[in-house]
Amino acid sequence: MSLVNSLEWRYATKAFNGQKVPKEKLDAILNAARLAPTSSGLEPFEIFVISSQELKEKIKPIAFGQNQITECSDILVFAAWDNYTVERINAAFDQTNEQRGFKNEGWENYRQFLLGSYPQRDAKVNAEHTARQAYIAFAMALAEAAHQKVDATPMEGFDPAALDQLLGLGSKGLKSVVIMPIGYRKEDSDWLVKLKKVRRPIEKLVTYLK
Amino acid sequence: MSLVNSLEWRYATKAFNGQKVPKEKLDAILNAARLAPTSSGLEPFEIFVISSQELKEKIKPIAFGQNQITECSDILVFAAWDNYTVERINAAFDQTNEQRGFKNEGWENYRQFLLGSYPQRDAKVNAEHTARQAYIAFAMALAEAAHQKVDATPMEGFDPAALDQLLGLGSKGLKSVVIMPIGYRKEDSDWLVKLKKVRRPIEKLVTYLK
Repeated sequence: MSLVNSLEWRYATKAFNGQKVPKEKLDAILNAARLAPTSSGLEPFEIFVISSQELKEKIKPIAFGQNQITECSDILVFAAWDNYTVERINAAFDQTNEQRGFKNEGWENYRQFLLGSYPQRDAKVNAEHTARQAYIAFAMALAEAAHQKVDATPMEGFDPAALDQLLGLGSKGLKSVVIMPIGYRKEDSDWLVKLKKVRRPIEKLVTYLK
Repeated sequence: MSLVNSLEWRYATKAFNGQKVPKEKLDAILNAARLAPTSSGLEPFEIFVISSQELKEKIKPIAFGQNQITECSDILVFAAWDNYTVERINAAFDQTNEQRGFKNEGWENYRQFLLGSYPQRDAKVNAEHTARQAYIAFAMALAEAAHQKVDATPMEGFDPAALDQLLGLGSKGLKSVVIMPIGYRKEDSDWLVKLKKVRRPIEKLVTYLK
């Protein structure tokens, strides 16, 4: 079993046909994101799912008028923590202790190490770090979508501050970092679907060091 | 077919048994990274593969003495462009034209748009952007490793500046952003392998907006 065939199949869909993604496929996509690894297991992001046409219409101008926003089945918004706080770090460590059913000295020492370093750092540094974790989950969702033969558009082309305001993310301490309309390709009006996928040959990507 | 089982199986391996990863599995992992989508198709990163024990020993102190560095089969170093330059953007667009066999006015206009905006931005902003793209590829490699039943440790715990110096990445205009030792778990000395995987319940991760 390999991901490679699914990744060859997928492309940044430019036109969706409006067909809905079934709930079990959406659940699988979200679950793949949930299972993504994150630094120190802090899971520093949330996902917002937008299915209503009314809300999509409001997002369209924020995403520079891209048609996928209103033609897709659902939009997944990946929103990262705007900062690491004592409360957030403690909640993650408490959750681990609760789910595993015990406390561990090494793990508690590690909690103290993070409490003594992350909240003191510049919020921008922390927000970049949380964004990278959200990107890992975003990639897992994208891979699962391809596996499920659900089309998707990885999308950075939107105004994060405007989206945060529309969705009320700021008051939750979140910042949208990347979004993913999902649905099914509309082949006859998608300029990209028939074009060759372009990637570097592997020897230009990979160097084997001696 | 779903990624979810593979993602349930994987964990941040704490002890490797020294067994080598076969070439075809390493190739699949690298190819998944190659197929990752990147912003505007710029592919702004490279991967370095380290298999020699001598080089692993030199990296170990840079990764704070973590045993996985010397016990693994190979280390994948994901190194992102330190900046967007005119040359790099042109090379990516030229590659697309070459692989597709034609020039397209819309695509050429988009090239000019990027040439007129990315190289002028602060190098730090650009480096954060390239790092996020490298994280997408990193996640695809991690997912493919799990699919191939190859263990891996997602690792941010290293000194990037020291690694860049050791591997000569700076002179190539690259910055290491995340590394991934791969190999096979050594169950009897891995403290994490038997512990429950901890993740938020899906309802704490996902919000359905009306």
